[in-house]
Amino acid sequence: MGAASSIREHLDAVAVVDHHVHGAFVEPVSRARFEFALNEASTVDLPAWDSVWDTQLGFAIRARCAPLLDLEPHADVDAYWARREELGAAEVARRLTAASGTDAWLVDVGFTEGVCTPEELAAMAGGSSHEIVRLEQVAEVAVAAGGSYAEAFRAELARRLAEPQAVGCKTIVAYRTGFVLDWSAVADAEADALADRWRDAGGLRVDDPRLLVFGIRCAIDAGVPLQFHVGFGDRDERLDHTNPMHLIDLLREHPDAPIALLHCYPFEREAGYLAQGFAGVHMDVGLAINYVGARSRSLIARSLELAPFRKILYSSDAYGPPELHLLGSRLWRDGTASVLEGFVADGDWSERDARRVATLIAADNARRLYRL
Amino acid sequence: MGAASSIREHLDAVAVVDHHVHGAFVEPVSRARFEFALNEASTVDLPAWDSVWDTQLGFAIRARCAPLLDLEPHADVDAYWARREELGAAEVARRLTAASGTDAWLVDVGFTEGVCTPEELAAMAGGSSHEIVRLEQVAEVAVAAGGSYAEAFRAELARRLAEPQAVGCKTIVAYRTGFVLDWSAVADAEADALADRWRDAGGLRVDDPRLLVFGIRCAIDAGVPLQFHVGFGDRDERLDHTNPMHLIDLLREHPDAPIALLHCYPFEREAGYLAQGFAGVHMDVGLAINYVGARSRSLIARSLELAPFRKILYSSDAYGPPELHLLGSRLWRDGTASVLEGFVADGDWSERDARRVATLIAADNARRLYRL
Amino acid sequence: MGAASSIREHLDAVAVVDHHVHGAFVEPVSRARFEFALNEASTVDLPAWDSVWDTQLGFAIRARCAPLLDLEPHADVDAYWARREELGAAEVARRLTAASGTDAWLVDVGFTEGVCTPEELAAMAGGSSHEIVRLEQVAEVAVAAGGSYAEAFRAELARRLAEPQAVGCKTIVAYRTGFVLDWSAVADAEADALADRWRDAGGLRVDDPRLLVFGIRCAIDAGVPLQFHVGFGDRDERLDHTNPMHLIDLLREHPDAPIALLHCYPFEREAGYLAQGFAGVHMDVGLAINYVGARSRSLIARSLELAPFRKILYSSDAYGPPELHLLGSRLWRDGTASVLEGFVADGDWSERDARRVATLIAADNARRLYRL
Repeated sequence: MGAASSIREHLDAVAVVDHHVHGAFVEPVSRARFEFALNEASTVDLPAWDSVWDTQLGFAIRARCAPLLDLEPHADVDAYWARREELGAAEVARRLTAASGTDAWLVDVGFTEGVCTPEELAAMAGGSSHEIVRLEQVAEVAVAAGGSYAEAFRAELARRLAEPQAVGCKTIVAYRTGFVLDWSAVADAEADALADRWRDAGGLRVDDPRLLVFGIRCAIDAGVPLQFHVGFGDRDERLDHTNPMHLIDLLREHPDAPIALLHCYPFEREAGYLAQGFAGVHMDVGLAINYVGARSRSLIARSLELAPFRKILYSSDAYGPPELHLLGSRLWRDGTASVLEGFVADGDWSERDARRVATLIAADNARRLYRL
Repeated sequence: MGAASSIREHLDAVAVVDHHVHGAFVEPVSRARFEFALNEASTVDLPAWDSVWDTQLGFAIRARCAPLLDLEPHADVDAYWARREELGAAEVARRLTAASGTDAWLVDVGFTEGVCTPEELAAMAGGSSHEIVRLEQVAEVAVAAGGSYAEAFRAELARRLAEPQAVGCKTIVAYRTGFVLDWSAVADAEADALADRWRDAGGLRVDDPRLLVFGIRCAIDAGVPLQFHVGFGDRDERLDHTNPMHLIDLLREHPDAPIALLHCYPFEREAGYLAQGFAGVHMDVGLAINYVGARSRSLIARSLELAPFRKILYSSDAYGPPELHLLGSRLWRDGTASVLEGFVADGDWSERDARRVATLIAADNARRLYRL
Repeated sequence: MGAASSIREHLDAVAVVDHHVHGAFVEPVSRARFEFALNEASTVDLPAWDSVWDTQLGFAIRARCAPLLDLEPHADVDAYWARREELGAAEVARRLTAASGTDAWLVDVGFTEGVCTPEELAAMAGGSSHEIVRLEQVAEVAVAAGGSYAEAFRAELARRLAEPQAVGCKTIVAYRTGFVLDWSAVADAEADALADRWRDAGGLRVDDPRLLVFGIRCAIDAGVPLQFHVGFGDRDERLDHTNPMHLIDLLREHPDAPIALLHCYPFEREAGYLAQGFAGVHMDVGLAINYVGARSRSLIARSLELAPFRKILYSSDAYGPPELHLLGSRLWRDGTASVLEGFVADGDWSERDARRVATLIAADNARRLYRL
């Protein structure tokens, strides 16, 4: 067996830890809702002349999910949808999530509308389920509690992290303000005063930069892994304000804090630089893998530059359509196999190292980071 | 016939709509002037030890234009120039522009010194000619008119857009100020006052940021496609201030406005993100294709990431040497064929989709956007 | 002999001028110190669960240096270290530096702790040795001199540049403040006053932005080649503040000044843009080549976009482990051969041009720039 096939077989077989994912649709959804869920960046319907299927993600679904629904690869869109309806949402979800080969699901439970729970995901797909606590949700509970916000935040965070399924935290400060912030410590009194103002204003969505920083620093103090949404997301964010270099003051203060930079597109190189420079910084290119589809090989290759191999993680960041849970894994497996086969063919890596690094990224790094 | 050859044959044959181009040299020019026209970024002569031919563009001309002048590919520079002189400027222009396979030319008539008119271009090369109105030129007419600048601008813009050949507008705000601007609405009175000051100062070149914004917002109000020069250009601009993310406030206010981001290098990924996030945003990688030559495959591949396939356009942005009109098309055809063949070979795209997307980018998307 | 093998043979044989390098370890060092020297970005020890060998650099050492120590490629780390100890530091240094095929070493003598001198490097490895004067070191001598800092700086700079081995200057302003600076002229009186304050504060490390600009402008006035550290380096710098576009005000004022942008990762495209736009600007992708290892082909390819081929230079930026001196050359040779073979295979370049451009980058451009 040649090096190439050996690497590809390993990548086909290795179990992954999906260290950042959401629930899947398991109930029937309309085609309009399904299609809407495929457009990450936009928050409105497409014009009549456009189609969400004419994207790398749309092509990837037809190429890689169709066969799991007993269709030919590249089945046309109507045939794909008809077969989906015929099989039913639950069966489609079961087939696609199970085929992802996922051993553990670390589910962001910050936003769960219309999708299955972590336990349902694991029961359907196999593997264990774990939870990632979203800091902005903790903030919204804390502000509603009344009294000292700072104390309420820490108490709620401790309570959530004490639950056996909790393995880490996540922040979406990228969406709320971006990273161009004063990252310095926020005194309890300052947090309390800002929270009072926020509560008076309705207390709906935390978007005060200092309160966001307060929460992030509480999570770092708690010593748990902290995930940052970085780069690619919807148009509510300014992509350029989510360049992870803007985190550097915080990282310099906490170089060993266990941090995971999520997605990172198109800042993979900056993320790799930080992963090399700071002992605690990890990174993945999840979410973006699905959305760039056929171009995910190149994205995966870029993630294998400066970042030490023990700092790179796998995630799908799937939310809703179970196609996304499958594709995250399938595209990562195929793209990683292609990239590593190339390294081996060029004499840069040994075949044995290629398999070993694949396993590190697939699962071992996440198991160590999250103490699974 | 295999998938690869079928895709390449399709790319060789498909007619393109060059949605952003300028006139060609059809009169004889000196070798010095010709060479000067090949250096996009610089505005001065090269030192004696340098040569504009030792660039990707220079190599691309020798590789791809020489055969159309009956020379071997990679002919040496002196032989190329001698043959050019022998054939004459008009014959060279005819051969090269015709070989581009262009069905429609959308000509930016904002700067036309020494080059043929849109009608002459179409007569020589085949295809139809159309005009893109440059907003900064409209501004310069409006300021000269006296009276209310705001009214004069709108009137001149309406007059220009009412001409049958006019199909859209273009702004070079990237060169004048960059995109780091206050994009909010400019009241007529403010525009009038600023224009008075500009007129008093001589009224030569519009570079007041608010007047530039005024013109851009007028074009959006007019509902016509609006092209933005983005990224790569000459050294008068600060490349980092032309990151299209700096347009986001304007785009959030007008998410459906028909906008085309031109060139985009090295911000293709940011442009793709905006094309996915905003219904009206389109993009191309013209101009840069010619200047990166052998590396244009990689550039084209990067443009096929987040941008929906119905939002990607073709342009050469050629100006002056008809070599640029040919190369824009030739490199786009070859690079796109290579990239799409790769997607098909990897199982990511079907051959049929590859041909279909090639046609969308070559012409159909532009025909829909500009209502050709 | 086919085009591919001819290009590769040329790249294997061509002598390089390493226009930016440091001394090598020639005395025995502990394994801990050796490993520490392999982590460019970090300034502290790795956690127990990490390993500097599980990086692209670590894999590159095992792939490409092991055979020069009579081991199989990809030898395991313990075996590699044991063999290194067995051969002895001096023999290892001799073998690895000599195998780099370097004809001239331009050594940055700004920081020399624990490494050999330029003369020792050349004696061991072959080739000639030259010196690059670090401006920040000149500043530290000048402030210690007392009296007018401006006069002392110019006198010390002139003294250093008058030494026969001196061929240029280098600045690490990227580390000290980044490039987001006021680049305008600094009057002597202003420099003197700032230096007085700096001297009073201890005079250790120059990090006043205006004093840094003062020194840089003195070097430009002296007319010698000036190297800027750009992009990738240790975590003391803010990567985003070392985007070379932030140099543009200085470059516009001195478009012909002989400048070399070093490393540039991940701003290779911005560096290429500047190299095309300004007659005096050159660039390399040294240092980064070693640290991205198997991905250096892609990096080299990106450096061959906008930058004119007579403006691209070779460097290793090796410091300490002689593995870095060898790898800089070996990876550059292999990566350049692969990239150029691809250009020729695609019909974009002739084989003859490929060999010619390889020689320009390897040595001829540097010989011209530094008047070797």
